[in-house]
Amino acid sequence: VATDIRLWLMDYLSDELLPQLRRLINTLVSRAESETGVLMPGYTHLQRAQPVRWSHWLLSYASMLRRDCQRLADCRAALAGNPFGVDRQALADALGFTSGVTWNSLDAVADRDFASEFQFAAAMLGNHLSRLAEDLILFCSKEFGFVTLSDAYSTGSSLMPQKKNADSLELIRGKTGRLCGHLVSLLMVQKSLPSAFNKDLQEDKEGLFDSADTPWFESPTVHPEACAGALSCDVLATDLAYYLVRRGVPFREAHAASGRCVALAEAKACQLHQLTFEDFRTVSDTFGEEVTQLWDFETSVEQYGAFGGTALESVRQQVAAFRRWLGDEQK
Amino acid sequence: VATDIRLWLMDYLSDELLPQLRRLINTLVSRAESETGVLMPGYTHLQRAQPVRWSHWLLSYASMLRRDCQRLADCRAALAGNPFGVDRQALADALGFTSGVTWNSLDAVADRDFASEFQFAAAMLGNHLSRLAEDLILFCSKEFGFVTLSDAYSTGSSLMPQKKNADSLELIRGKTGRLCGHLVSLLMVQKSLPSAFNKDLQEDKEGLFDSADTPWFESPTVHPEACAGALSCDVLATDLAYYLVRRGVPFREAHAASGRCVALAEAKACQLHQLTFEDFRTVSDTFGEEVTQLWDFETSVEQYGAFGGTALESVRQQVAAFRRWLGDEQK
Amino acid sequence: VATDIRLWLMDYLSDELLPQLRRLINTLVSRAESETGVLMPGYTHLQRAQPVRWSHWLLSYASMLRRDCQRLADCRAALAGNPFGVDRQALADALGFTSGVTWNSLDAVADRDFASEFQFAAAMLGNHLSRLAEDLILFCSKEFGFVTLSDAYSTGSSLMPQKKNADSLELIRGKTGRLCGHLVSLLMVQKSLPSAFNKDLQEDKEGLFDSADTPWFESPTVHPEACAGALSCDVLATDLAYYLVRRGVPFREAHAASGRCVALAEAKACQLHQLTFEDFRTVSDTFGEEVTQLWDFETSVEQYGAFGGTALESVRQQVAAFRRWLGDEQK
Amino acid sequence: VATDIRLWLMDYLSDELLPQLRRLINTLVSRAESETGVLMPGYTHLQRAQPVRWSHWLLSYASMLRRDCQRLADCRAALAGNPFGVDRQALADALGFTSGVTWNSLDAVADRDFASEFQFAAAMLGNHLSRLAEDLILFCSKEFGFVTLSDAYSTGSSLMPQKKNADSLELIRGKTGRLCGHLVSLLMVQKSLPSAFNKDLQEDKEGLFDSADTPWFESPTVHPEACAGALSCDVLATDLAYYLVRRGVPFREAHAASGRCVALAEAKACQLHQLTFEDFRTVSDTFGEEVTQLWDFETSVEQYGAFGGTALESVRQQVAAFRRWLGDEQK
Repeated sequence: VATDIRLWLMDYLSDELLPQLRRLINTLVSRAESETGVLMPGYTHLQRAQPVRWSHWLLSYASMLRRDCQRLADCRAALAGNPFGVDRQALADALGFTSGVTWNSLDAVADRDFASEFQFAAAMLGNHLSRLAEDLILFCSKEFGFVTLSDAYSTGSSLMPQKKNADSLELIRGKTGRLCGHLVSLLMVQKSLPSAFNKDLQEDKEGLFDSADTPWFESPTVHPEACAGALSCDVLATDLAYYLVRRGVPFREAHAASGRCVALAEAKACQLHQLTFEDFRTVSDTFGEEVTQLWDFETSVEQYGAFGGTALESVRQQVAAFRRWLGDEQK
Repeated sequence: VATDIRLWLMDYLSDELLPQLRRLINTLVSRAESETGVLMPGYTHLQRAQPVRWSHWLLSYASMLRRDCQRLADCRAALAGNPFGVDRQALADALGFTSGVTWNSLDAVADRDFASEFQFAAAMLGNHLSRLAEDLILFCSKEFGFVTLSDAYSTGSSLMPQKKNADSLELIRGKTGRLCGHLVSLLMVQKSLPSAFNKDLQEDKEGLFDSADTPWFESPTVHPEACAGALSCDVLATDLAYYLVRRGVPFREAHAASGRCVALAEAKACQLHQLTFEDFRTVSDTFGEEVTQLWDFETSVEQYGAFGGTALESVRQQVAAFRRWLGDEQK
Repeated sequence: VATDIRLWLMDYLSDELLPQLRRLINTLVSRAESETGVLMPGYTHLQRAQPVRWSHWLLSYASMLRRDCQRLADCRAALAGNPFGVDRQALADALGFTSGVTWNSLDAVADRDFASEFQFAAAMLGNHLSRLAEDLILFCSKEFGFVTLSDAYSTGSSLMPQKKNADSLELIRGKTGRLCGHLVSLLMVQKSLPSAFNKDLQEDKEGLFDSADTPWFESPTVHPEACAGALSCDVLATDLAYYLVRRGVPFREAHAASGRCVALAEAKACQLHQLTFEDFRTVSDTFGEEVTQLWDFETSVEQYGAFGGTALESVRQQVAAFRRWLGDEQK
Repeated sequence: VATDIRLWLMDYLSDELLPQLRRLINTLVSRAESETGVLMPGYTHLQRAQPVRWSHWLLSYASMLRRDCQRLADCRAALAGNPFGVDRQALADALGFTSGVTWNSLDAVADRDFASEFQFAAAMLGNHLSRLAEDLILFCSKEFGFVTLSDAYSTGSSLMPQKKNADSLELIRGKTGRLCGHLVSLLMVQKSLPSAFNKDLQEDKEGLFDSADTPWFESPTVHPEACAGALSCDVLATDLAYYLVRRGVPFREAHAASGRCVALAEAKACQLHQLTFEDFRTVSDTFGEEVTQLWDFETSVEQYGAFGGTALESVRQQVAAFRRWLGDEQK
């Protein structure tokens, strides 16, 4: 029974889940490559923080999913490394008792670590996909309006003619609970089990099969203008502070001055970029006239040129790194 | 030890958690009462569905929390019904061996059902609060803009001067995981434990105390105009269909016609209420001229007058029912 | 969909789970009634502690399962109290807006509390059954030998001709993990879900159906002699201490003296009851000659005559209380 | 904050948990080496199955814990590979953008995979220790009597002078629930979190610290005679079947014949080895006179000489393999 599950899982990982996941990463990377021009607000605490490239957001999920790939590939490697059911003596001789066969027959019959590890990797993958789904559900809302799902992944409402519901994304978000539930089941079954085989372990199969059936996902249309439209100038308040820093003001002071500019704009019921040079001078003498030319999102984004950043060149380097990795994986 | 935990938990429920929860419900109900005039979109699948009163949304959480109150009150009642540690014989005589003391001494020493039940009730409460927190985090975002948190419940950003983060809400959302984790711990500890007392049960205390320390919450400022601003006329597409139904069109057909109006408005790049009478007639001959007067959110909301609905009178009845219940609880 | 699940669950509870559970309690109570003569060691920490009646052990599980019955009956009552899908206005009028219909339409469409409550009650039941299974697996071992499973509930070994495996019990123990996993799935799905209906909730059905299919259980043959055989006289060390207490020795001192007798027997490599009167006198002058007549398990057990205790009369009172309750339930 | 947790966790793994775990493995291996002479029944389904060496049982746990070591070492390696907080550009240049730094700044701030992985590895370790604890609690019971805990790891009973409770083992068993609960908390906190940093993640620390404080364990005294005493001859029924197989009987038939011998001994109320040669002949003509010399546990155990088996040489090879691995680890 244990051997059968192992073989099934190896096949499932090699033939289905890993290729699926690599296809999804490939889609994310391809879009990141071709849609580098789209700017959007980066969010922390669901508040607009700083402008980032849409590509950068796409690649953040490619990063998470790459870790999932590695975790699942480790599961598969562990499975392959366990030559369960073969002539152990011959193997042991051949290998000189080194790495692969140092286990113990009592341990081996009850060892379900591999199943727990797969279940954990599946729960992590589920969590990452649930976060991607959550972001997309937000981005699809009228209030955000950054993306539209293709009709294949949304359904109309039986009651409300105007609606397009992101059902597929909600299903993905919901599956996460199930994947974590399976992990809990399996850990709980194994808890304080007397040594060697007990029938309780028969419980381990259903969770695996079900996780394997969980549907993964495809991608939506982005609306560059809507994304850009959400870039109000106050997301550049950090740049305003950096501007002062570049002119010699200590960061803490620069931060406070920038905050006072935000407050001033609020008081005048205007946007940050609508403040006049005179307005800025009431806050700090350090502001030069060029401060009114500061409001360019593209320039802001290009400041983050370190590897992993959101500047065009950084994003391209990330894309290249992903392409190289995908190439290596498919060998 | 078991007796101590029970006594502590009874006090904690009576003196802290239940009063706190009733105060929160009271706040929700009071605001529901005084802010009935605020209309907002009701969401399903995070898509605007139909207009509802802000009060109706507040009372939906009051409803959930009332169930939590009842669940926690049941826990307390169960604790009080277990006169643990007292003279059982005297009690049994006095009560004629009826309800409260029908247990068994072997069972009693290892019974942690009461702790599991509290932990479950706490996890449910946590889940409801996490949903309230999630809604508020969305409503606080620039994209929604329906509410602003008071400064006491948000923090500025160390890096970005313009930001106001809903930290307190995110902490509540995060606590939910912990409350569910405590429940899992407790259930797992008890799993397949041999009968009578085992030291494993000592694990049960920490989760209780921690759940008790989890901070609950206060309320934000609503922005009626922003809420109303999110009421684009397409949330009245259902009313448009109902209009046709009232004029004798079968629902399925009316739904389709309303959908074609939405599509027509999209094609003409205008809002649904900007369609002319002639436009409507291209979709269906049944439309009369008064169709152009249909676009009133207040009227729409007033259609749902059944108890539990979003019409003014329905909301007032809900408020009255909650007030009566709160009054009974505090006796 | 919500209405369907509710109706299905009500039927399942009324027609299947509750009757099954009452049948199991009935079996435990009937055996407790007819097998009162069997004495066995009561265990704490899996160490023999004091003699108890086998009936007392059986009734400790009847007690747990009775709580499960009440919990599940509460679920059913809650379901029945929610007249989902009926004419709310008529109902509200009839009831004068009192108890049953005080909810809110926004809350009602997304309310899955009833499913979570059932899942929790099922997890608690699973936990109790896993403890019963664990005890029986121990009692079936050669080392304990207290009970033998009927052939219907054990299987032979494909490799080892002498074995009779308690597979059915291990499967029950294993199901507990699954039931708790389902609960976690459901709680996690609901966590921080935006208000009103979201597709995620579709996840809730499968867990319910599966819990419903989980097989429950029947009972084994007890071996009175084996049970009695495990009653070595050291489980009467507490009685030895109580004997001294009755003769005026403070408990702490009596406990120490009894401990010294146990140590003396160990040193002489004999059983406690094989110590001579002279031996006892070396420990304490308070011992009278009748101490050598103390070693009667039946007498020991009869000391615990309070309701819930293990004396014959106490056990009979428990049986009567259970019978009355079962009678009331079946009305 | 993330950097601090990572650094703390790296130190904790390197300086505390891994050395502790290696010390425990070392203890198990040393005892396995010096106590190879002790035979005991191997159990499946808590029924005596076949004789095994005590050393073999010890090494089965060393095997599990070695996997835990590797899992935790992988966590530490992953942490070290993430040069969080350092000059990324310099590093990226130096490394040619290859392995370690291919992440994305949006992903990096919210990435708690490392914490989840540690929590999972801790839950697995907890599960393995709970199984070791469960076995030892059984072995310490009067019914088994294979081992005695040292006084440092057991406590007397406040009520029952004769008792020695395995409290420390029960605490370990109980901690498992908590470790799994922490994992659930952390997975649930991350579920469907919008991208980038949210305050919810602050929840991740407490679980880590607590897991780290969970006390691990030391070893008990084994009683070779008690272990051997549990080796009734029916655990050799498999050998009896193998005896027939060596004489040309097909396995299925040999298994049946051996089963009939077990039944015959039961019917004659004697042990398997007390059957006479004539008795055996009534079951099968294939039995030769030497069948009555078959009853040697040592010989039985020595049949399993493949690597991972329970024969003396196999056990010694396992010990050597573990020693080599421990040596490599400490380099």
